Amino acid sequence: MINVGVIGYGYWGPNLVRNFSEVPGSRVAAVCDQQPERLVQLQARYPIIKTTTDPYDLYKDASIDAILIATPVSSHFDLAMKAVHAGKHVLVEKPMTATVEQGERLLEEAARCQRVLMVDHTFVYTGAVRKMKELVETGQLGQLYYYDSVRVNLGLFQHDVNVLWDLAVHDLSIMDYVLNARPTAVAATGMAHVSGQPKDLAYLTCFFDSNLMAHFHVNWLAPVKVRRTLIGGDRRMIVYDDLEVSEKIKVYDKGITLNNGQDQRYQLMVGYRSGDMWAPQLESTEALRRESQHFVECIEKGQQPLTDGEVGLRVVRILEAATHSLAQRGRPLEMHWEGAVA
Amino acid sequence: MINVGVIGYGYWGPNLVRNFSEVPGSRVAAVCDQQPERLVQLQARYPIIKTTTDPYDLYKDASIDAILIATPVSSHFDLAMKAVHAGKHVLVEKPMTATVEQGERLLEEAARCQRVLMVDHTFVYTGAVRKMKELVETGQLGQLYYYDSVRVNLGLFQHDVNVLWDLAVHDLSIMDYVLNARPTAVAATGMAHVSGQPKDLAYLTCFFDSNLMAHFHVNWLAPVKVRRTLIGGDRRMIVYDDLEVSEKIKVYDKGITLNNGQDQRYQLMVGYRSGDMWAPQLESTEALRRESQHFVECIEKGQQPLTDGEVGLRVVRILEAATHSLAQRGRPLEMHWEGAVA
Amino acid sequence: MINVGVIGYGYWGPNLVRNFSEVPGSRVAAVCDQQPERLVQLQARYPIIKTTTDPYDLYKDASIDAILIATPVSSHFDLAMKAVHAGKHVLVEKPMTATVEQGERLLEEAARCQRVLMVDHTFVYTGAVRKMKELVETGQLGQLYYYDSVRVNLGLFQHDVNVLWDLAVHDLSIMDYVLNARPTAVAATGMAHVSGQPKDLAYLTCFFDSNLMAHFHVNWLAPVKVRRTLIGGDRRMIVYDDLEVSEKIKVYDKGITLNNGQDQRYQLMVGYRSGDMWAPQLESTEALRRESQHFVECIEKGQQPLTDGEVGLRVVRILEAATHSLAQRGRPLEMHWEGAVA
Amino acid sequence: MINVGVIGYGYWGPNLVRNFSEVPGSRVAAVCDQQPERLVQLQARYPIIKTTTDPYDLYKDASIDAILIATPVSSHFDLAMKAVHAGKHVLVEKPMTATVEQGERLLEEAARCQRVLMVDHTFVYTGAVRKMKELVETGQLGQLYYYDSVRVNLGLFQHDVNVLWDLAVHDLSIMDYVLNARPTAVAATGMAHVSGQPKDLAYLTCFFDSNLMAHFHVNWLAPVKVRRTLIGGDRRMIVYDDLEVSEKIKVYDKGITLNNGQDQRYQLMVGYRSGDMWAPQLESTEALRRESQHFVECIEKGQQPLTDGEVGLRVVRILEAATHSLAQRGRPLEMHWEGAVA
Repeated sequence: MINVGVIGYGYWGPNLVRNFSEVPGSRVAAVCDQQPERLVQLQARYPIIKTTTDPYDLYKDASIDAILIATPVSSHFDLAMKAVHAGKHVLVEKPMTATVEQGERLLEEAARCQRVLMVDHTFVYTGAVRKMKELVETGQLGQLYYYDSVRVNLGLFQHDVNVLWDLAVHDLSIMDYVLNARPTAVAATGMAHVSGQPKDLAYLTCFFDSNLMAHFHVNWLAPVKVRRTLIGGDRRMIVYDDLEVSEKIKVYDKGITLNNGQDQRYQLMVGYRSGDMWAPQLESTEALRRESQHFVECIEKGQQPLTDGEVGLRVVRILEAATHSLAQRGRPLEMHWEGAVA
Repeated sequence: MINVGVIGYGYWGPNLVRNFSEVPGSRVAAVCDQQPERLVQLQARYPIIKTTTDPYDLYKDASIDAILIATPVSSHFDLAMKAVHAGKHVLVEKPMTATVEQGERLLEEAARCQRVLMVDHTFVYTGAVRKMKELVETGQLGQLYYYDSVRVNLGLFQHDVNVLWDLAVHDLSIMDYVLNARPTAVAATGMAHVSGQPKDLAYLTCFFDSNLMAHFHVNWLAPVKVRRTLIGGDRRMIVYDDLEVSEKIKVYDKGITLNNGQDQRYQLMVGYRSGDMWAPQLESTEALRRESQHFVECIEKGQQPLTDGEVGLRVVRILEAATHSLAQRGRPLEMHWEGAVA
Repeated sequence: MINVGVIGYGYWGPNLVRNFSEVPGSRVAAVCDQQPERLVQLQARYPIIKTTTDPYDLYKDASIDAILIATPVSSHFDLAMKAVHAGKHVLVEKPMTATVEQGERLLEEAARCQRVLMVDHTFVYTGAVRKMKELVETGQLGQLYYYDSVRVNLGLFQHDVNVLWDLAVHDLSIMDYVLNARPTAVAATGMAHVSGQPKDLAYLTCFFDSNLMAHFHVNWLAPVKVRRTLIGGDRRMIVYDDLEVSEKIKVYDKGITLNNGQDQRYQLMVGYRSGDMWAPQLESTEALRRESQHFVECIEKGQQPLTDGEVGLRVVRILEAATHSLAQRGRPLEMHWEGAVA
Repeated sequence: MINVGVIGYGYWGPNLVRNFSEVPGSRVAAVCDQQPERLVQLQARYPIIKTTTDPYDLYKDASIDAILIATPVSSHFDLAMKAVHAGKHVLVEKPMTATVEQGERLLEEAARCQRVLMVDHTFVYTGAVRKMKELVETGQLGQLYYYDSVRVNLGLFQHDVNVLWDLAVHDLSIMDYVLNARPTAVAATGMAHVSGQPKDLAYLTCFFDSNLMAHFHVNWLAPVKVRRTLIGGDRRMIVYDDLEVSEKIKVYDKGITLNNGQDQRYQLMVGYRSGDMWAPQLESTEALRRESQHFVECIEKGQQPLTDGEVGLRVVRILEAATHSLAQRGRPLEMHWEGAVA
């Protein structure tokens, strides 16, 4: 039985508590939040869980095996470092840390202490994203052309991070998993419309070694909610609409065909191919349930999580570079990866 | 009665012939196309229209008052210059010319010859775009935050121009009309996926002096057709979906509110305001009909067209700068406007 | 403080427990269910609520003021009668009873015991339905032409009632509230596709004294979920789509106009009028929260609920007549109302 | 070369003229319409087609092989009888005739004169309807449960027929082709909202020998346009949405499963099965083009058309019975078929 402690009982914490309470092999021993009224709410629902406003109570509790961190980004590094240092396994909200440097230090410390470090890239555990991964990996899309995502709505302003760190982080974690490719350069444009607040609208392009390209549109000030990703390949194309209730993934048997024209000296003829559309049935297990189970198993079996610290750090690297480009109106910035796969 | 000659009877030419045949005050006297089989088709439908494969037959025909040019972009400049020189009024397809330099020379020549030069920015004459212009101009959106458009589908590759010149030209002409603002810089990223072919996917950002920002996503290789523009202001926001049959324009009474929080020293509170949505009824006259009538009137009354050469040149300037940025992976390029309004 | 006891902790019971736990002025004292494992679940969440498998424990508990009944229809009458008889106020799930006769006896008993009897017609308390009521009552639709609803999906078969009693009951309760009219006749057709099971597909027509007509389509075996109601009037028309997240109600300024043609002797000219569409913002309070509060207030102040026993009985009358017509392949059956309003 | 004459150049006639002008093996020799201004329009486009206001000019013209009738329903019988009598093959708009008796007499006369009699059930020739036919015939839906269609919008009032004859005729012709089954009884309810005008809203149920059921909802006074058909089987289900541009047919791998419960004496357990959704690519040939070609071939080869007089008469039989039921508020009326297939 893995005993977990949760730090942060705001928006996401209650979901962690519910899932780790119900997953076989784990139980929630204690919850920490700085706002006592949240802890009152918790106790009304879960009277057996201990509560505290001081995270040290969790670190020093020898019965606690793992710490789940669901606080604002700026506090992730400090809380996670202390938890690892105290010998706890850690599951931290995305983005993993506020800077690349913090991420690198956290990875080192987790390795040194031999603790499991996992990042809560929840979407990676959804049926929809897993299906896209499968379609890409089995070559059903053919050679990849582009990855294009839109994630906009009238959303809560985050005061400590810009819209890329709040919204694009989801899409970058999905792309990292589905494409398994590292951008060689990024360029981002964006704007802040409220004085003194972070940028609320941004567009991010990722370049790759191949002629694959990725683009992300995120916006806190849109009148309608859109959650749509297009992935284009030369054999098939995907539309992933997360707002669809039952047909989130549509696979289009469409593409282009290339033929030499009558007069080969002059031009290649570009033709269009159209076919069936297909919406595969998706696994309906709640993503966080699957993820919670995975975290528990990784601890029990000493395995590396699917969304480990390396993955978390890759996403932070892109966010950091994008934020730099954003300040320079889209000037492209090179990305360097050690042992990069693509 | 204005006699018009049409050069180019491919995709768009038949629409010009139909409209100028039916608009009061004009008639189609002659049509020129290099492919004789197209002229055979024309004569089956319009036996009284003269046909030719040589544009000079139109220039030298003294009974012809105006020339409509519906040919590939690369030929616009040459055909339009000769027409103006021959004393004809000219309506030319978008983009007006293939370069800024061509555009400047064409404007000079049209001014010198005192001929009407109009660019066929058809969308400007639709009920939907006119309604957006009205909403912006009367201040109903408040201060403008952003203009975001998506125009993608599995579309015909153009061999002579990239996807910006083919698709974004529509959106730039709409933006020019609706916002009446000049970008101070542009940044564009994109990719060619078919060897030897122009870029088929592009993202363009336009920066302005204010904290307004515009972004355009165009793609010839998308599995689904999207024609959607969001315009955000601090009072209201618009969603313009050109694929909707009857509710193309939706106006959202949504926005943000700013309040000083309890502790003014620390932060401004950002709140959200939500209200009704409203889809105004739109004029249903065919855009090209309204535009044809406007061209005829401008000739008759010696007026400046709504989409004159200046407008056409502004759009070409942005396309040219965007194409340069595209080649540099999004490096922002400054735009300079004489007598700019914004 | 109103103490409530809940009978039935299956699909709907948990929602009642949650709401009556949180509404000011009420608390949940005890829950009864025949399946002990459900009570275990309850106690994990609400350790202070008493549990029992015997409803008599609730009837005889003098501290309990009101009983909420969320069990299958067949048990409603018996449970509600005993509760009223024991001096409890009652909130019963829809349909109120399994027969008109039961409904009449329950109303008599509630009146005799001077207890509040309320039926859980939840939709009546939604922002969407309240907005429709307002639009109809203030005459904004003009004279009413029709009410048409579709409620279909691949749904749970009910073993004890046909699809009308399970699904159309929602729409009849909405119609009763919004139109405030009594049908003068009903005709229903339908079919059972699974041997030994109730009818899973049905179409119900309600006739009225005026030239208003209502129609209901319900189906447990549809591949897609539809929740759509059209209400047509001579001035405006409503589309109510309950699956829309934020624009559930759309009001169309459309209708027909009647003019005498040139030759009045022969025919009336029917014209069409088209105008704006408008989606009013709706109250977002959870319907069951508003309803719970209303029940508590009715008890405290001795008021008649909006969805009282009379309303519940009207809906049961239509369901009973419709079921008779269903057995006769749509033969129309007259409805008789005492003191009917329409 | 089949020479055709067209009677009626209103809404549909121009489509017939265009298609029979372009189909190989046919040409349009003459067009008749009572309104001379329509003939002027025709001649502007097709100067070589003869025009007349008198249908006798077509009957007596020996060079004309076939007559296409695109006039109001009330005139179909008279015009078609005279055409057949004059030795012409006939293609008549739907509904074939205004009564069953007329239909029977027309069939007899066509048989006697050995002329091809075809009814213009255009939808039968669309890619979408042909795909549904294929799915049903090859057993992919399994045993059929229901056929449900909705065809509503703010539409043109027909002064001579009610909304069933104007709109449901499309769906009845589709159902006749796709299901190849004859209803054993019909029941229809509906209403007229404009004094002196035919019923503008109607609901029609068709009963069959099996536990298949069909239902049709048609309405001239709806605020939105809906063209949707659901076909449910025990193996798969279809949603046919004719307003979709590219995915008109969606096939759902959904259904119910039946298992004996633990205690077989008491009940059959109904389970749900869910799977992929699939939108097959459809043939994109214009339906009327395919139909025109078929008519020409039937004449040339002496074949029976797919939508022959028998088919047209079956649809008229249902419309006539439905109209009788409509007048009796849904009283079910038996249908009797000679040599019925289902």
